[in-house]
Amino acid sequence: MIDRLQRIRVVLVRTTHPGNIGAAARAMYTMGLTRLTLVAPKYPPSHPEAVALAAGASRILETATSVATLDDALAGAALTIGLSARRRQFVGRALGVREAAAAAIAHAQHGDVAVVFGTEMSGLTNDELARCAIAATIPANPDYASLNLAAAVQVAAYELRVAATGASGWSARRHPPATYDEIEGLYRHGQTTLTGLAFFNPAMPRRLLPRLRRLFGRAMLEHEEVNILRGILARIDALIAASERQRKR
Amino acid sequence: MIDRLQRIRVVLVRTTHPGNIGAAARAMYTMGLTRLTLVAPKYPPSHPEAVALAAGASRILETATSVATLDDALAGAALTIGLSARRRQFVGRALGVREAAAAAIAHAQHGDVAVVFGTEMSGLTNDELARCAIAATIPANPDYASLNLAAAVQVAAYELRVAATGASGWSARRHPPATYDEIEGLYRHGQTTLTGLAFFNPAMPRRLLPRLRRLFGRAMLEHEEVNILRGILARIDALIAASERQRKR
Repeated sequence: MIDRLQRIRVVLVRTTHPGNIGAAARAMYTMGLTRLTLVAPKYPPSHPEAVALAAGASRILETATSVATLDDALAGAALTIGLSARRRQFVGRALGVREAAAAAIAHAQHGDVAVVFGTEMSGLTNDELARCAIAATIPANPDYASLNLAAAVQVAAYELRVAATGASGWSARRHPPATYDEIEGLYRHGQTTLTGLAFFNPAMPRRLLPRLRRLFGRAMLEHEEVNILRGILARIDALIAASERQRKR
Repeated sequence: MIDRLQRIRVVLVRTTHPGNIGAAARAMYTMGLTRLTLVAPKYPPSHPEAVALAAGASRILETATSVATLDDALAGAALTIGLSARRRQFVGRALGVREAAAAAIAHAQHGDVAVVFGTEMSGLTNDELARCAIAATIPANPDYASLNLAAAVQVAAYELRVAATGASGWSARRHPPATYDEIEGLYRHGQTTLTGLAFFNPAMPRRLLPRLRRLFGRAMLEHEEVNILRGILARIDALIAASERQRKR
């Protein structure tokens, strides 16, 4: 569903700081969003400060459209979502940004989805928010819920990406896992070595071996790691044998 | 579990731009995180640019601690999580930031949890990341995964807050809901009025009424809204009656 991210329009209403436009563009692009609409911005997206803060996302600014009114920005959208930090009286559905992002990705199969952010100091007006089908809010510290505009765009864009592509990041590169036989061989070897070290007494085993199994079980051993561990055990075995020989002399 | 957020240490390693320290502090505080540790920062957290970008979160900077090494920053932590955008070879557990945040909040019952962010240009080194029990990654656009430092802190802090307190935002203020009787009364009234309007023909009902039920059912009508709708219906009824009288004259 990653292509649905191309159906998302990010709409910024009456931005007053050009740097925020650039930082918002960067936030969008890190999450794969590319369509930016500006409603009556104080400065154009080509402003040098916007370009500087967009960093590697300046092409988002180049393709951004500027329109005069919020109506223009919402025209043709299949779903409209307005971000709001403050509780409002007259809204249809109020959702957390996670649920709203899921709704956005679901609706994106039918057409464009507009995600609307208000002006820096005061957010969306009640009239603006009333034009949105969903009011979305980012859970925040009630004592200080003042996210920077680009930070709010970052969180919303992140949730949209997760809704479209899933929450997992890259996974650690997996080397070939150890087989059952290899792992059991390691445990047998380990028991022998620990016995030789007089750290383990088969006549009085306590819970040592199960605890070691639990530890290495959690680690999901790889083939090469078993070899390394057995190499260490072999080195200890050799030391034990040498010490035995010396003792017998 | 909101108190567990107080167990989270945000650790920034070798920040080069003082503004990023301030913006990160703001991001933290919007999500209720308050403990900031700086490892060998190029500029102190009292730098004017840091204070300016912290906005209303400057007290996070005032209580921030600066230490010389990452070891100092991680001392005593029950769990260490390093953020990394790039895939690395030698990491223990690699998780998406959502799962990592859940692990952080779970571990916070045992003690402090350190969440570590690398330097702006290149992130954590392999050595630094190897000191962390979990490598966490923020799902991102593979063509441009370069989140600004404060933006990465914002997303991680957001996930920590959601893990501690839940994903829902404020809900729309609910007025008293309409009762079953009120709603059924509305439907009966509506059917009468629509019949009077010749928009509905009881002899050929088609699917009109079920569709209206479905629409208003989704809206979860409130008591006052039923009154408003019935007021509108009554006004239409009066118009129909007046027009009937005129026709009969």
